[in-house]
Amino acid sequence: MPARCRAEAVTPCKSFDLAAYLEKSASAVNRALDAFLPKATVKPVTIHRAMRYSLFAGGKRMRPALCLAAAEACGGRRAEAMPLACAVECIHTYSLIHDDLPAMDNDDLRRGKPTNHKVFGEGIAVLAGDALLTQAFEIAAQCRGWPCYSHRDIVLELARASGSLQLVGGQVADLEAEGKSISKSQLRYIHERKTSALLCCSVRLGGMSANCTPRQLVALTDFGYHVGLAFQVIDDILDVTQTSQQLGKTAGKDTAVQKATYPAIVGLDRSRRIAAELTQLAFEALAPFRGRAQALEAIAQYVLRRDR
Amino acid sequence: MPARCRAEAVTPCKSFDLAAYLEKSASAVNRALDAFLPKATVKPVTIHRAMRYSLFAGGKRMRPALCLAAAEACGGRRAEAMPLACAVECIHTYSLIHDDLPAMDNDDLRRGKPTNHKVFGEGIAVLAGDALLTQAFEIAAQCRGWPCYSHRDIVLELARASGSLQLVGGQVADLEAEGKSISKSQLRYIHERKTSALLCCSVRLGGMSANCTPRQLVALTDFGYHVGLAFQVIDDILDVTQTSQQLGKTAGKDTAVQKATYPAIVGLDRSRRIAAELTQLAFEALAPFRGRAQALEAIAQYVLRRDR
Repeated sequence: MPARCRAEAVTPCKSFDLAAYLEKSASAVNRALDAFLPKATVKPVTIHRAMRYSLFAGGKRMRPALCLAAAEACGGRRAEAMPLACAVECIHTYSLIHDDLPAMDNDDLRRGKPTNHKVFGEGIAVLAGDALLTQAFEIAAQCRGWPCYSHRDIVLELARASGSLQLVGGQVADLEAEGKSISKSQLRYIHERKTSALLCCSVRLGGMSANCTPRQLVALTDFGYHVGLAFQVIDDILDVTQTSQQLGKTAGKDTAVQKATYPAIVGLDRSRRIAAELTQLAFEALAPFRGRAQALEAIAQYVLRRDR
Repeated sequence: MPARCRAEAVTPCKSFDLAAYLEKSASAVNRALDAFLPKATVKPVTIHRAMRYSLFAGGKRMRPALCLAAAEACGGRRAEAMPLACAVECIHTYSLIHDDLPAMDNDDLRRGKPTNHKVFGEGIAVLAGDALLTQAFEIAAQCRGWPCYSHRDIVLELARASGSLQLVGGQVADLEAEGKSISKSQLRYIHERKTSALLCCSVRLGGMSANCTPRQLVALTDFGYHVGLAFQVIDDILDVTQTSQQLGKTAGKDTAVQKATYPAIVGLDRSRRIAAELTQLAFEALAPFRGRAQALEAIAQYVLRRDR
């Protein structure tokens, strides 16, 4: 009943079992990541233990799920998208390890466990992040290829979403905004880069692995952009409303370091409305898929309603 | 007179003006890097200033020179190899920024200037390294392609040389060996990864950009491996014999942190002999080029005889 799902927008689509979908896709992603990464017994053992510690720390695998769901929406097969889903997760995990460092967000807790540098020390944590970023490109390059998009397209997509103009640029702008009063548009600039860029890249790569049409790629870009922004607005809200135990990471951190967030700038109620509007825009972007994007719709719903 | 050059092995080849060659190639590499990187005025300004600070801090551009010289030895054009030469230099610079961090080698001086984290702070230095590593893959992916090697081959080559089994793995093993007594074979394991892997990758990529034959690629690999090891043995020697002013970085650092080095394990004289033997092996590897590898020969000479 995809049409009904879209019409009701932010009402969950009862016909789609998202929990089962996410569990199945996370299991498949975990198996693939385990196969792509050097085993923890490979020398130098420390770096492979550190890489695997954060990669298998119980992440929700939201970006890989979006990548796989986008591939399916375009009529593609999960196996074709899997290396790209894994590459994106490696980049996401590297960015968390580096963001948690004392010189950045200085966080002790991530996904309910001590952060990488608390376990392995700062030097190894920096290197584990470096190695995961590099591993992402190795994984993307070593897969066998796709019909309409080249390795060149795929690597460029990954590199641009992760570089100084997007993911890294967002973290820089976020660091620099701490303790300062910034406008809503400056906050959106940060969110677009820090969160939306890699989420958007995840769905685009999924589409590309399925030989998507240019029109589908535009739709996926639009969807990924808005889901990414909604994801970060909800993240800001959860930081204020949930406990550290519920989140598995340090709650109230944004307020403590005077980080610019939606709740801080426009208040909680308005933040919730903005997240719902962004999710609605994400839904509308899926129109060209005419009901073949149930998983993407359900993930967008989940992003809006999640509590951790 | 290339045959004479090879026969005399570690005697400099008088007919080749290496200083002029290195100056010309460094100028061309600097221009290309300037064109590939976002300008320092592009937002977020801090990250682009930090990336450019270390990238244009006066590096010798040894890896790009090796890449370009390898392309020429295979009959290729400099322009085809240039993006790969730049990609390798971005990876080398990122590794220096991260290695200099307080959590790793904790160095204040690099190329005669304050290290990246001393100028921009640790958080930005981590991110500048991350961005340069990512930029390397973007540069490699965005060039127009080569006749016999695909973007897939090139990206895999770069990623494998830089990842947890090579460059990053070498730095991990190096960190872990500090203050410990290790054997000569363990030290070689570190040098192969920390230095030789990326030098070897530089010459291989140069060859690949020139559509080299499999036999030429084997020869370049052999050459790069031995030049890389010689480079690191000489680095160890210079750390003991030169002043900080001569090196442009903190001299005596290896001894101060009880780092495993060739001089520490086998003494200075034996280290010098080992470096000469490795250079000789590098020379011999160039036999298949029958005199078309003058620049590579001259660079190998320079690596052995350099004083900084």
